[in-house]
Amino acid sequence: MGDSDLTLADLGEFGLIEKVAEIVAAVAPGEDVVVGPGDDAALLRVRKGHVVVSTDLLVEGRHFRREWAEAKDVGHRAAAQNLADIAAMGGRPQWLTIGLAAPADLPVQWALDFTRGFAEEAASVGAGVVGGDVTAADKVTVAVTVLGACSVSPVLRSGAEPGDVVALAGRQGWAAGGLAVLGRGFRSPRILVEAYRRPEPPYAEGPVAAEAGATAMIDVSDGLLADAGHIATASGVSIDITTGAFEIPEPLLAVGQAIGADPLQFVLGGGEDHALLAAYPDAGSVPAGWTVIGKVLPVTDGPRVTVDGGEYDGPTGWTHF
Amino acid sequence: MGDSDLTLADLGEFGLIEKVAEIVAAVAPGEDVVVGPGDDAALLRVRKGHVVVSTDLLVEGRHFRREWAEAKDVGHRAAAQNLADIAAMGGRPQWLTIGLAAPADLPVQWALDFTRGFAEEAASVGAGVVGGDVTAADKVTVAVTVLGACSVSPVLRSGAEPGDVVALAGRQGWAAGGLAVLGRGFRSPRILVEAYRRPEPPYAEGPVAAEAGATAMIDVSDGLLADAGHIATASGVSIDITTGAFEIPEPLLAVGQAIGADPLQFVLGGGEDHALLAAYPDAGSVPAGWTVIGKVLPVTDGPRVTVDGGEYDGPTGWTHF
Repeated sequence: MGDSDLTLADLGEFGLIEKVAEIVAAVAPGEDVVVGPGDDAALLRVRKGHVVVSTDLLVEGRHFRREWAEAKDVGHRAAAQNLADIAAMGGRPQWLTIGLAAPADLPVQWALDFTRGFAEEAASVGAGVVGGDVTAADKVTVAVTVLGACSVSPVLRSGAEPGDVVALAGRQGWAAGGLAVLGRGFRSPRILVEAYRRPEPPYAEGPVAAEAGATAMIDVSDGLLADAGHIATASGVSIDITTGAFEIPEPLLAVGQAIGADPLQFVLGGGEDHALLAAYPDAGSVPAGWTVIGKVLPVTDGPRVTVDGGEYDGPTGWTHF
Repeated sequence: MGDSDLTLADLGEFGLIEKVAEIVAAVAPGEDVVVGPGDDAALLRVRKGHVVVSTDLLVEGRHFRREWAEAKDVGHRAAAQNLADIAAMGGRPQWLTIGLAAPADLPVQWALDFTRGFAEEAASVGAGVVGGDVTAADKVTVAVTVLGACSVSPVLRSGAEPGDVVALAGRQGWAAGGLAVLGRGFRSPRILVEAYRRPEPPYAEGPVAAEAGATAMIDVSDGLLADAGHIATASGVSIDITTGAFEIPEPLLAVGQAIGADPLQFVLGGGEDHALLAAYPDAGSVPAGWTVIGKVLPVTDGPRVTVDGGEYDGPTGWTHF
């Protein structure tokens, strides 16, 4: 049997753990790791007096399809969506744990490629994988927890105030465009498909926003309007988004035309690019690399998100169940 | 529609998150939680200059069956197996995150009872739930990450030396007996079934062992001999277990007789009670509450685990895939 035919059942739990640990150690051992993978728990040195922690699940068939993305891309994406949560607090991710549940007939190569993509994405921001668990399941399910630290006070969702401006960093709507293309059986525009497969969250802009005095921040994962709504609800404000602020990129225009959809709906409803959305006290405090896309308003009839001053009747994002 | 008929699909993702957060806040908010559930990440104050972190997955049909245990029990067990990992380092668990993937037709009551059991088990050791994620999946899948701290140096798997004694704290084999009973369609002896449904790891004995100078420690989750093997491999030693050290409890004798099995196999092969297994420099340093059950030997032909000085040919534990 060639290596490429090997399944998890052939390799076994402990064989898999050993290979995963090797990859992780080679790619991204992480800083301040006193005890790494392999014991009952990892031991991590905390220098800032605090940790920020976040956790996420990805389920095959819902968050990814094995036929739509290479294992390595799924690994990148699984790490990215968690790393972005720490960035959205204004923090720097340091350590990740990863739980992998997978069918016994999953090719070992898939699990290893996934791990490599995951560890490489983590390494791109200086974070390392410090522990995990593997178990059998009918579908590939990935559970990630990420730990990090903030240099200044973390930026919560709840600090936006009327008069603040709303700004965005990173690509927005690209992944949604890629997903729309894949869902229709196409593979291009390639740049959008790649954006879906391997998001590029603007990690560094999280701490930049915190230093610049952002009053509220979130990473866009449910959809721009949905996540603006999370800030609005947590802050007790309303938010108005200005569509004129968005320059719709050419590939999104092309996809809109090809499938007969308004490309703006990818921008307003799309998640999974993990752009950062933040409120700032005024336009002058918005850092370079951010684009002002709206404003924070007082609540009139409960917190709500409007588009160009009115109700938006397109899809606003994703909800589970 | 009565509350008892409500499914996750009826309640929706955000409705579920809200109810789960309410339960968690009411039962076990946790100490040193600066920002709790509901933002992109939780913010935790770290007083010891380090954290220990561990993660585990539980998958319906493999780690639990909804027909074999109440939701609340599954919650207790999910928390217990993670809390025990921190105890096995000699640490005290402080914070947990929980990822819940579940079918849309899961009764809301199941998810809430599960959460309550989970939070109550955490609260029993002073730990709190600080974050999580919910998503849809075909089968209930639970991903837990636990963070804690150690007062003294953590006790690894790798420190056992020839001449050490091996000791055990907590029930061992009870859960395996309960599982054997349930697997045959019975519901008694009730005390074993309860031991399976709701393990009672000797959490406090972890820090006690660390203070007493334990040289290596693990929590028994794969099976006593299998986990002794993990210590042996990590430490580069062999371990001999003395069966005469175990007083087989009456319910295990009864089950052995009823199903024609050697009750010792529950003790030697069983996991999921989350007993603690540790090595100590000598019998004099073994704390009260621990029972000496074997000794650490030099390696002759590779690290191995023997029983009464010889090979053991029964089942030694559990492996995935």
